[in-house]
Amino acid sequence: MMAKRASSRKPEDTALPMRDFPLNRAFTFFEPGPVLLVVTSINGRHNVMTASWTTLLGFTPIIGISLGPWNHSYNTLFETGECVLSIPTVDMMEAVVDIGNCSGGDIDKFKYFHLTPLQGQKVATPLVAESLANVECIVREKPGNNGLHLFILEGVKAWHNPDREEKRTFHAKGDGTFIIDGETVNLRHKMTKWEDCI
Amino acid sequence: MMAKRASSRKPEDTALPMRDFPLNRAFTFFEPGPVLLVVTSINGRHNVMTASWTTLLGFTPIIGISLGPWNHSYNTLFETGECVLSIPTVDMMEAVVDIGNCSGGDIDKFKYFHLTPLQGQKVATPLVAESLANVECIVREKPGNNGLHLFILEGVKAWHNPDREEKRTFHAKGDGTFIIDGETVNLRHKMTKWEDCI
Repeated sequence: MMAKRASSRKPEDTALPMRDFPLNRAFTFFEPGPVLLVVTSINGRHNVMTASWTTLLGFTPIIGISLGPWNHSYNTLFETGECVLSIPTVDMMEAVVDIGNCSGGDIDKFKYFHLTPLQGQKVATPLVAESLANVECIVREKPGNNGLHLFILEGVKAWHNPDREEKRTFHAKGDGTFIIDGETVNLRHKMTKWEDCI
Repeated sequence: MMAKRASSRKPEDTALPMRDFPLNRAFTFFEPGPVLLVVTSINGRHNVMTASWTTLLGFTPIIGISLGPWNHSYNTLFETGECVLSIPTVDMMEAVVDIGNCSGGDIDKFKYFHLTPLQGQKVATPLVAESLANVECIVREKPGNNGLHLFILEGVKAWHNPDREEKRTFHAKGDGTFIIDGETVNLRHKMTKWEDCI
């Protein structure tokens, strides 16, 4: 008999604090270019992959993300038109790299990596309770015929965990090494052209 | 009488070491999501802007970059079909932020910010001698009609400065704060799916 897939837990069912975050500030999760988790879900089966080819394309936020069609998640994203972009921190780094080196076609990654799916508000795809932040997204444009596999996503609901002590994200160098966030420098006084954003 | 614009210096004319870098490894400059300088040139007039909405789209490398049509560089990039993506380091951070807060329509940014244009090999647009690395790029796709202002660039020649002591790049948070690269962690042993890339 097949094991029944765990369904998502509602945020209020758990002690894990994933709280509302202003959608119009969610671009700040993506602009620094951290490694992301991409959560997809189809037929009640959740999956998660690791991605680093992403960019902000609009403040609302609009996010571009390039996933290969060889990724299990690619087809789910293409079919369901929704996903959750989840921001992991450095304490999750080894798991995040391992998540990127196995396929949801072979294992239940939520179960294997002890991730807790939390029910979101706008999409059926769950949030990752363990992450620093989660943004529910819908697909605005599917990949075209230019061979680039670029999805254009629109964030429709943002969440974060304000109680998390570890807030440092990390960046893929692309060669198997990863750069951890170092010091943050405040240069707001210099952002004369961008006062609306800061 | 208008001042004559400085032309580019050839790499061999200067003590500043900007050397060949393997083009098929140049994706490692972009994947971590650092703040970039975008150099453009038209009618012998060089300009430079700051950009952080970029993503890798292919290993060769292909880079997606979103520039607003309100940027002076947008029109030059659109018209000339070429640019140089230049990777600044943390010692250039304040200048890079200031470069992002003024317009090439008003000032000669190379002159004002004491940047040295170096002649590249494949495009007429100069490299920035002071940067960690430079990649000469041609425009593969101009922005479509989806309001996203996304250029698809292809890197055609890469350069780096191997003698530079400061190698830390930095990342825009989007709110006027910037994250400096911290520790680099080697997880190559975990990259079983990506052995060709590491």
